[in-house]
Amino acid sequence: MARALRLAEQGLTTTTPNPRVGCVIAHGDTLVGEGWHERAGQAHAEVIALRQAGIQARGATAYVTLEPCSHHGRTPPCADALIAAGIGRVVAAMRDPNPDVAGEGLQRLAEAGIEIAEGLMSAEAEALNTGFISRMTRGRPWVRLKVATTLDGKTALNNGVSQWITGPAARADGHAWRARACAVLTGYGTIREDDPQLTVRDAPCSRQPLKVVVDARLETPLDARLLDGLPVLIAAAVGNPERIAALRARNAEVVILPNAAGKVDLEALFTELARRGINEVHVEAGFKLNGSLLREGCVDELLIYQAPMLVGDAAQGAFNLAEMSSLAHARRLDIFDVRQVGADLRLRARFRPDQGR
Amino acid sequence: MARALRLAEQGLTTTTPNPRVGCVIAHGDTLVGEGWHERAGQAHAEVIALRQAGIQARGATAYVTLEPCSHHGRTPPCADALIAAGIGRVVAAMRDPNPDVAGEGLQRLAEAGIEIAEGLMSAEAEALNTGFISRMTRGRPWVRLKVATTLDGKTALNNGVSQWITGPAARADGHAWRARACAVLTGYGTIREDDPQLTVRDAPCSRQPLKVVVDARLETPLDARLLDGLPVLIAAAVGNPERIAALRARNAEVVILPNAAGKVDLEALFTELARRGINEVHVEAGFKLNGSLLREGCVDELLIYQAPMLVGDAAQGAFNLAEMSSLAHARRLDIFDVRQVGADLRLRARFRPDQGR
Repeated sequence: MARALRLAEQGLTTTTPNPRVGCVIAHGDTLVGEGWHERAGQAHAEVIALRQAGIQARGATAYVTLEPCSHHGRTPPCADALIAAGIGRVVAAMRDPNPDVAGEGLQRLAEAGIEIAEGLMSAEAEALNTGFISRMTRGRPWVRLKVATTLDGKTALNNGVSQWITGPAARADGHAWRARACAVLTGYGTIREDDPQLTVRDAPCSRQPLKVVVDARLETPLDARLLDGLPVLIAAAVGNPERIAALRARNAEVVILPNAAGKVDLEALFTELARRGINEVHVEAGFKLNGSLLREGCVDELLIYQAPMLVGDAAQGAFNLAEMSSLAHARRLDIFDVRQVGADLRLRARFRPDQGR
Repeated sequence: MARALRLAEQGLTTTTPNPRVGCVIAHGDTLVGEGWHERAGQAHAEVIALRQAGIQARGATAYVTLEPCSHHGRTPPCADALIAAGIGRVVAAMRDPNPDVAGEGLQRLAEAGIEIAEGLMSAEAEALNTGFISRMTRGRPWVRLKVATTLDGKTALNNGVSQWITGPAARADGHAWRARACAVLTGYGTIREDDPQLTVRDAPCSRQPLKVVVDARLETPLDARLLDGLPVLIAAAVGNPERIAALRARNAEVVILPNAAGKVDLEALFTELARRGINEVHVEAGFKLNGSLLREGCVDELLIYQAPMLVGDAAQGAFNLAEMSSLAHARRLDIFDVRQVGADLRLRARFRPDQGR
């Protein structure tokens, strides 16, 4: 299963909107076939591994990181392929959270007389598909918010100077996180301040994630660097037809999702992204949008790079949250991964279930 | 040597103003004696180990974490004791930074025909006596500044609420750092806000560190809890005789060390503390004094506990530093130790040599 998980990881930047899946077929310690899902519409991991195993699949054990599918999607059901190949036993790391599958794949295998087991290395398998699970079970993507701060919690000096607080290793690591996301989200404020390209450059990636801009009043300039690479989706609160036409002429798609306050309805935006098959969203925004996302409970995970420096209290903070009168209102997280990346520190933290929204 | 270092560590909270030293005497793999220095005025590590080894010291190797002393202090020179016992070889982790020794101990051993070696596990040995080395070589203590912040760099809410941002494990760990320090330093602002006891309670410690208060205008109230436990030293900028008498009646010592700005001359204070044999100072102060200490280059090391929560930008920051116009002015550190303490994260970072002052 560990090998199947490593295989699945190879699809980290390519399987969207599908989950990352790996499969190993073995007789005892002898590996006879392996495969991983690379791209939607192409063969699933199980099918590739079965092809490799050929006749040796008969009576073998298939280790799959996700329950084999039972439904006809763009490819025929993998459960049927496993049955047809005469597999003797299937070990699945986790059930498919897709309501069209949800145990049916395993059931079909069992009904065909195949021995089944599930749950082996399920935590690792779930971590690989946090986004897919989120979209399938909650109807919204997994939202990871990235910030780079100093040790005193600042993202930039008051005059806007922020490039570069963290070192090259942290920036490359940040691009690897962009690469695995289906979409990279920012706000108009960041475009105005930094004019980012928002593409994956410092990490291997064969496709670019969707760029999503929260721009309530459609103020993104037509020469913004982010518009140079496709695809781009701009979420606005007002439907100014001239601006929409101009942005469309730059190949950006515009969706109008206003909330009662005349801003972009962030929750509706994430629902819309999920509808479009977006599993993981990587947010790189500024103080204001970060704060709005947090206040509206849209963030699942923080990815914080801390640069070993102090810049003082006058500098720019990372999150625009309302003043609190009691620590009971603090937004609490669990830090689950800490490592040194170059001279910087990288923290990953998840909001506690009752704190995220 | 690893064993000698572990022995030396047992004196972590007791040897002040002396260094922590351990000694192991062995014939090959056979240990014949070991000792560690516990308290100034009492036997040095080498002497205790020699006593235990007795006749077996003859021809043995002595592993010492610090060069054996060559001068008559409160006890006779250890170098002479090693020679008299017929030790065959001495391995010292590091030279004694004390200018009264500084290689003389090793030289005396060599002159007596003892084989000598130095430098084995020197980094570990130096880490054990950072404060002693600092006092001996720079005439000032090693200053460690402790802060507990949220992930967004805040120490308290704007209404002063700060207890408790970090969890019980982090607080106990903080007390262990207090315990190993020779002095714990705070400012009048913290006394006014929190009225701390500033004693070691959550960690084993057979003596209390000196409590040092930076209180320019002698405003510490006579019923401050910190005055309840000895010893206390108050550093002021003004010499109000009545206040001094009242504080003295509470058994606090007062020193007047004004600078040109009418505040406490922090550098002069640390020189004074070094003169009194203070090796390590543990700072637990607030936004203002933390900023002053940093601006005046008095801090060698940061000890940061980060609680996994966000409280928003309106809350209180940790360091009052002047606004910067360029990241070139950022105070840069090297993070050299990171670990999880309970649910919190503990970072240790040192200022880069050109950044501390």
